[in-house]
Amino acid sequence: MKKAYIIATGTELLTGSTLDTNSVYLAQRLDDLGIKVVGKSVVGDTRDFIKKALLTGLETADLVIATGGLGPTLDDLTKEVACEVMQVKMELIDEELERLKEFFARRNRPMPEANKKQAMFPKEAVRLRNGVGTAPGMYLKQNGKVLILLPGPPQEMTLMFEQEAVPLLVREWGLSIGKAERKRINIFGLGESQVEEKIADIIKNPRGVSIALLAKEGEVHIRLTAEGEDKEASKEIMNRMVKEIEERLGSYIYGYDDETLPLAVARLAQKRKCTMAFAESCTGGLLSKMITDLPGSSEYFWGGVVTYSNEAKQKILGVNAETLARYGAVSEETAREMLRGVLSLAGADIGAAITGIAGPGGGSETKPVGLVYIAAGSKEYNQVKKFNFTGNRIIIRTLAAKTALNLIRQELSRGDV
Amino acid sequence: MKKAYIIATGTELLTGSTLDTNSVYLAQRLDDLGIKVVGKSVVGDTRDFIKKALLTGLETADLVIATGGLGPTLDDLTKEVACEVMQVKMELIDEELERLKEFFARRNRPMPEANKKQAMFPKEAVRLRNGVGTAPGMYLKQNGKVLILLPGPPQEMTLMFEQEAVPLLVREWGLSIGKAERKRINIFGLGESQVEEKIADIIKNPRGVSIALLAKEGEVHIRLTAEGEDKEASKEIMNRMVKEIEERLGSYIYGYDDETLPLAVARLAQKRKCTMAFAESCTGGLLSKMITDLPGSSEYFWGGVVTYSNEAKQKILGVNAETLARYGAVSEETAREMLRGVLSLAGADIGAAITGIAGPGGGSETKPVGLVYIAAGSKEYNQVKKFNFTGNRIIIRTLAAKTALNLIRQELSRGDV
Repeated sequence: MKKAYIIATGTELLTGSTLDTNSVYLAQRLDDLGIKVVGKSVVGDTRDFIKKALLTGLETADLVIATGGLGPTLDDLTKEVACEVMQVKMELIDEELERLKEFFARRNRPMPEANKKQAMFPKEAVRLRNGVGTAPGMYLKQNGKVLILLPGPPQEMTLMFEQEAVPLLVREWGLSIGKAERKRINIFGLGESQVEEKIADIIKNPRGVSIALLAKEGEVHIRLTAEGEDKEASKEIMNRMVKEIEERLGSYIYGYDDETLPLAVARLAQKRKCTMAFAESCTGGLLSKMITDLPGSSEYFWGGVVTYSNEAKQKILGVNAETLARYGAVSEETAREMLRGVLSLAGADIGAAITGIAGPGGGSETKPVGLVYIAAGSKEYNQVKKFNFTGNRIIIRTLAAKTALNLIRQELSRGDV
Repeated sequence: MKKAYIIATGTELLTGSTLDTNSVYLAQRLDDLGIKVVGKSVVGDTRDFIKKALLTGLETADLVIATGGLGPTLDDLTKEVACEVMQVKMELIDEELERLKEFFARRNRPMPEANKKQAMFPKEAVRLRNGVGTAPGMYLKQNGKVLILLPGPPQEMTLMFEQEAVPLLVREWGLSIGKAERKRINIFGLGESQVEEKIADIIKNPRGVSIALLAKEGEVHIRLTAEGEDKEASKEIMNRMVKEIEERLGSYIYGYDDETLPLAVARLAQKRKCTMAFAESCTGGLLSKMITDLPGSSEYFWGGVVTYSNEAKQKILGVNAETLARYGAVSEETAREMLRGVLSLAGADIGAAITGIAGPGGGSETKPVGLVYIAAGSKEYNQVKKFNFTGNRIIIRTLAAKTALNLIRQELSRGDV
């Protein structure tokens, strides 16, 4: 498998004011092409740093792609430094000069003298046409290493990469666009190390599949890449692996690839023609927001209430004043009454109610920050569960909303609704 | 000026599937602290590449910050490699081990053996507490270079950086005693070019202030940096500049520095002892979520309703069936009745109601995707405004919720509530 190293140049990328979207795009596309990205580097418009990054890239990878620094100004140094590193000389290429002149002529502007350097190239290089701006790119193979220079503006970069660079790479290395098979398994309700424990022996003996675990906002994703003789073989290897992991993790798996928890819930609700309604206290609308992020959610989402105050809980959901006084707003009893209230208000098939303490204030010894009760289910079949989430306010709210979605998902999967 | 190098580790960052937001955050914060970021590097979870990146960083900068790779799994290698590079030995720290055991005990789970390595540290290092997860960070100074290791999950990273690492850096290098004065002016309701037009002459003649405009999610931020002879002089220059900009932009300015629109609304509501309630259709809970993101919002937020379906609008808010039939759910009339409904349900002083078409489906020629009606105000004083937002579903929903907040802010500022 060929290896690639990406370099993004530009001082503006180092202050956090401009996002380096180029290297993200390239990483994704190289991954698609079956080229393994082994590193990325962002450097300012400084000769030394650009040089160091290029040397690191050439040392560690077969392919180095650098973006930015092909413009006409003094701090556009990438091409110059790259040629120095590759030990090739630049010369003025008439054809490029003509093209530049034409570019400016079409805009009724004289070509600034500074732009002339955009027509300088080593004769060993393939010049890559810029469909948008003035800066041509460069493709250079020396000593078995390929160096590609692309412009910094994202539209110019992507167009040039796709139309000019990819065909050259495919020809160079006979890339069979995609023997590998990829899949992501998405899990909720287990921590990263618990998942790892459950599939430890599979990880140790992965039989042709590369396995990576990623924990994110209460979820764990298992990323699988299977590579066999050809696409068919890869698929077969992948299917076996997925089946094995499914046997270990069962209903902790909520979806595959890009499926999110809200999507998994939506899919089940649509399949079973269920309507849903939510009652939220500490999550303050986040749960409803997550479901309505999805286009077409009006098909299964009746609505929700954000009963943040006790008065709202009583007035809209009919939670008993006595329940609130006796057990408190954050209690199993209140969660249950909230669910009952929203289900009868909405006449919905299934619902969830969340009440808890998101913090940072409001906690006590018996009811600490992170304590959350979640009720989920239908009028007939429902459950109330107690959770102790840790983290800051944002994390506690996110975990509470996702857990509610997961409980709904479990209810919808059970088949009793 | 001290120099910094940022390293983000994690194979998932190299396939483009996970965005490296950590290094963007760090770059921005280091810039704020007056530390110059000279380079960034993203590497997979591979010993060699991590080592190479660390060496490059230590060679080129005074400070190296690495994120990720502090977890319990086999491919979490950062700490181990860093200690090798810094030539220090790790040992089991009892105190950290106890903390880990407690972490799992609180969750009623046994500590997996793998997590033990998170309690291994060199005795020369300062251990940085993780307020969220199990992975402690590390601060190590050797031979005049500072190395900081932070966990990968963004929430853990930012919390640890701000609470643990920044104070150490400030002490180490006597930071933030910069001469420069920074301020951000936050604007809603004008586009970037409109803002630019209004302050064009100031931008042309900035008198010692550097001015940068940044457009983001419907907002425009003006970032100002004033640098005079000393701190006092910088402050004076800044104050003059801010006053001049305020004269041009008036009430389009909703806040300064880190103040967000929800915060601006919260501040006014608290000052005027107002309670609020929201009725949302197309934003589906996003507006309530934005306000309840703020700790302590129960002081002024009564609650909200997500009346996604027509039935919910009628049942909870008392919107007339006739209004819905005659004008439609997305209409000035419905918005007005939704506001009236939620205000009388809640008995709140002020409120907002949003109804619109977030798309991608559901649009028509007369009511296209992006059409949103927003009602805001008190029972006595309120307004309904019509908007045509452009963008995808997420953008339309965000703009609608923010616009509602901005209308509430204007109402609260007017003084008629």
